Amino acid sequence: MNINIIVYFLGWVLKIEGILMALPCAVAVIYQERSGFYFLGIGLFCVLAGWLLSRKRPDNAIFYAKEGFVSVAMSWIILSIFGALPFYLSGEILLFEDALFEVISGFTTTGASILSDVEALSKCMLMWRSFTHWIGGMGVLVFILAVLPLAGGYNMHIMRAESPGPSVGKLVPKVKLTAKILYVIYFSMTVLQIVILLFSGMDWFSAMAMSFGTAGTGGFGILNSSCGSYTAFQQGVFTVFMILFGINFNVYYLLLIRKPKDAFRCEEMRNYLGIIFVSVLLIAWNIRNLYPTFFQALRHSAFQIASIITTTGYSTADFDLWPSFSKTILVAIMFVGACAGSTGGGIKVSRVAIAVKTVKKEMASLLHPRSVKIIKYEGKPIEHTVLRSINTYLIAYVLIFAVSLLLISLDNFDPTTNFTAVAATLNNIGPGLAEVGPTRNFGLFSPFTKYVLMFDMLAGRLELFPMLLLFAPRTWMKE
Amino acid sequence: MNINIIVYFLGWVLKIEGILMALPCAVAVIYQERSGFYFLGIGLFCVLAGWLLSRKRPDNAIFYAKEGFVSVAMSWIILSIFGALPFYLSGEILLFEDALFEVISGFTTTGASILSDVEALSKCMLMWRSFTHWIGGMGVLVFILAVLPLAGGYNMHIMRAESPGPSVGKLVPKVKLTAKILYVIYFSMTVLQIVILLFSGMDWFSAMAMSFGTAGTGGFGILNSSCGSYTAFQQGVFTVFMILFGINFNVYYLLLIRKPKDAFRCEEMRNYLGIIFVSVLLIAWNIRNLYPTFFQALRHSAFQIASIITTTGYSTADFDLWPSFSKTILVAIMFVGACAGSTGGGIKVSRVAIAVKTVKKEMASLLHPRSVKIIKYEGKPIEHTVLRSINTYLIAYVLIFAVSLLLISLDNFDPTTNFTAVAATLNNIGPGLAEVGPTRNFGLFSPFTKYVLMFDMLAGRLELFPMLLLFAPRTWMKE
Repeated sequence: MNINIIVYFLGWVLKIEGILMALPCAVAVIYQERSGFYFLGIGLFCVLAGWLLSRKRPDNAIFYAKEGFVSVAMSWIILSIFGALPFYLSGEILLFEDALFEVISGFTTTGASILSDVEALSKCMLMWRSFTHWIGGMGVLVFILAVLPLAGGYNMHIMRAESPGPSVGKLVPKVKLTAKILYVIYFSMTVLQIVILLFSGMDWFSAMAMSFGTAGTGGFGILNSSCGSYTAFQQGVFTVFMILFGINFNVYYLLLIRKPKDAFRCEEMRNYLGIIFVSVLLIAWNIRNLYPTFFQALRHSAFQIASIITTTGYSTADFDLWPSFSKTILVAIMFVGACAGSTGGGIKVSRVAIAVKTVKKEMASLLHPRSVKIIKYEGKPIEHTVLRSINTYLIAYVLIFAVSLLLISLDNFDPTTNFTAVAATLNNIGPGLAEVGPTRNFGLFSPFTKYVLMFDMLAGRLELFPMLLLFAPRTWMKE
Repeated sequence: MNINIIVYFLGWVLKIEGILMALPCAVAVIYQERSGFYFLGIGLFCVLAGWLLSRKRPDNAIFYAKEGFVSVAMSWIILSIFGALPFYLSGEILLFEDALFEVISGFTTTGASILSDVEALSKCMLMWRSFTHWIGGMGVLVFILAVLPLAGGYNMHIMRAESPGPSVGKLVPKVKLTAKILYVIYFSMTVLQIVILLFSGMDWFSAMAMSFGTAGTGGFGILNSSCGSYTAFQQGVFTVFMILFGINFNVYYLLLIRKPKDAFRCEEMRNYLGIIFVSVLLIAWNIRNLYPTFFQALRHSAFQIASIITTTGYSTADFDLWPSFSKTILVAIMFVGACAGSTGGGIKVSRVAIAVKTVKKEMASLLHPRSVKIIKYEGKPIEHTVLRSINTYLIAYVLIFAVSLLLISLDNFDPTTNFTAVAATLNNIGPGLAEVGPTRNFGLFSPFTKYVLMFDMLAGRLELFPMLLLFAPRTWMKE
């Protein structure tokens, strides 16, 4: 294990986190909040500590897959610990585990909160809370790759470990350029949403915070009613942008380089939009009697579906009160999640689609044992190694799910609460059903359960294996 | 599609079912019950119709995988329809869908009932109900293979489709002999249990019926209290025999041919007993305050674990009232199930164990991308095709689970009821939690939901693919 290169990397992570704390500082200055000093102090400390750690590039720059996974997992943990300090030290969140839960929930774009009264937080804390979504959405390490003066082939290990989806599609041959393009698209779309919200009459603070939450498909709101008190137009803007940020960013890149035909041919996007379309209609039909008009039902159905499938977690309605059929659809698409290469979480549409295709293929080969059929996705045959990694991903997913469920059931809540709490954190969604429904929060759990769910959020965001490897003895053995 | 050979096969199935109805007839004679005439009439009809259909062996005996799957699926459906007639025609079960549900639950060894008052049934009906477990446990088609004068290599297709587990281990090179050996072991162990129960002071009717339910790992009882009113010794006998019938029958064959070392080396049996041991201790510890002594808690824990992991479904305690942790363990082992090559259901211990091994292997290969590691089970490397079939099995399993959940949620029961109803039927267990807990029954569901659950029971018993293929248009297309 090349510890030096990992430390060097963590130094960079700290430096960037320190710099990013300038935003809540600015908010504190504008609103004249004293709690801004915590961001100033911790930000400066991070920059200083980070500068010390990454002062000198290690001579031995060997960076294998092992170092890649450990760097990614450790970065996210360090990021979260320092990100939690302002909440804890300022006393705005009393317990350290709660502050850590809140920030991990932010960086992993989960949006599950332990706060029962969000509005009690100061403005700068609220902005930092929403900003963590934006930072975590595209991946802070991808950002580092875009700016870091590193050469060599090892960048791909980082990107593979942090990027959502079964296989990392490099947009262009160079990782650094890919990372830059992704961030440009991400930044531009966020600005566009802020501008539209400003035009709709929203104040700049809300527009920024809520757009960060949408762009990262996070879900932290700044009001206790989540999105319930915004205008129908603003809710519509959220719906559209949530869906847009859940699409594979390759599509935007293809549009950017004026290849609209290739963009619209994207199989994953078509599957994703298809699932949304069908689910919205089914739920709208199922809840039509709960709302005065069918259009209202359709609007709420669309918002909630967009929020859950992209794993954002905003809500305009308490879907815990909807009929079983609607709740089952919501829970099902919790697992499906958004597209690979987007900011959304979950298992990812492409993984699910490929898994379904393997079953179809198996059925065909049972009927005709000697026939050979190749599974295609996005028009290309899928390599055996990708299929294998999808299968092991799914199995690891189920195992982590089962173990988490078992551990948190020691708190003795009802099965629905336990099941949806794990589903909502492992898929980085936010709210679940019953005790963790959209009008409730995760504050009721024991500290032990909170740590289990923090692990799940990180595991879900980093596609399981970096977190699993961090706890595997083999990773730390000398070989 | 060679329809003639399928019809010929179904003829044999009917004939055998007719003959098997002699047992409830005998019970009716002893207890002088008029409802026995229904078994006499339907039994004779089955023998006659079966004889007509299988009078002449078709000239074209070509029997591909396709015919194998369709024969198996159709056989189980035909078997269930005629098996349900005595209940329905005698009026002891009023609705046809309920009678069909009860019999499918019997043949698939599920043990889920729609009856709220089991004791109201006549003795001959009760015996038939329990006898269906015994018939379905080892597989009626395996029985046919043991007696049918068929030659040729196609028998393996039947056995593969009906036998539980990732790969069919032929005990001896000849399918016919394997089938005979399996039935001899099965029959002897059942007789042994009956004898022990008779010695414990149980009457012969209860001893027989309850042993059929244990041997097939079914779970239909003959008292409304399931197993709650038997003596502690008798409950102990059930516990031991449930566990024994959940072990891979290869182990007994190895003992039979005096290779005890090979028998005890069986990795699946070790995993299975290990899971039972750990679960029993964890639950006993968790429920220790609910019972006067720790030994009592241990006893109830062992009985319920044995009942659920072997997918039998007997109960001595209302585990729906146990704490969340215990319930989560019970639900988790519902999915694991018993050993392959036993009469138990579920996903099977070997599939789960191999799946866990693939994750371990993936983690190792992420750390050392160039290393090559082979997955071994039972000391032998696992072939690529077996791994692939396990993966597609697991995916198909999750898909059937999700679709079933969605369909039955239209009945608008709570999530725990819906989830455990599907889990209990797809894994062929019997009772679930909440509205379908051990003291409740499946009678409350709508007819549509009952048909969905019937499909799940058959799919679970036949390892998914025969039932899926029956509904796939490709199966019926001319090629």
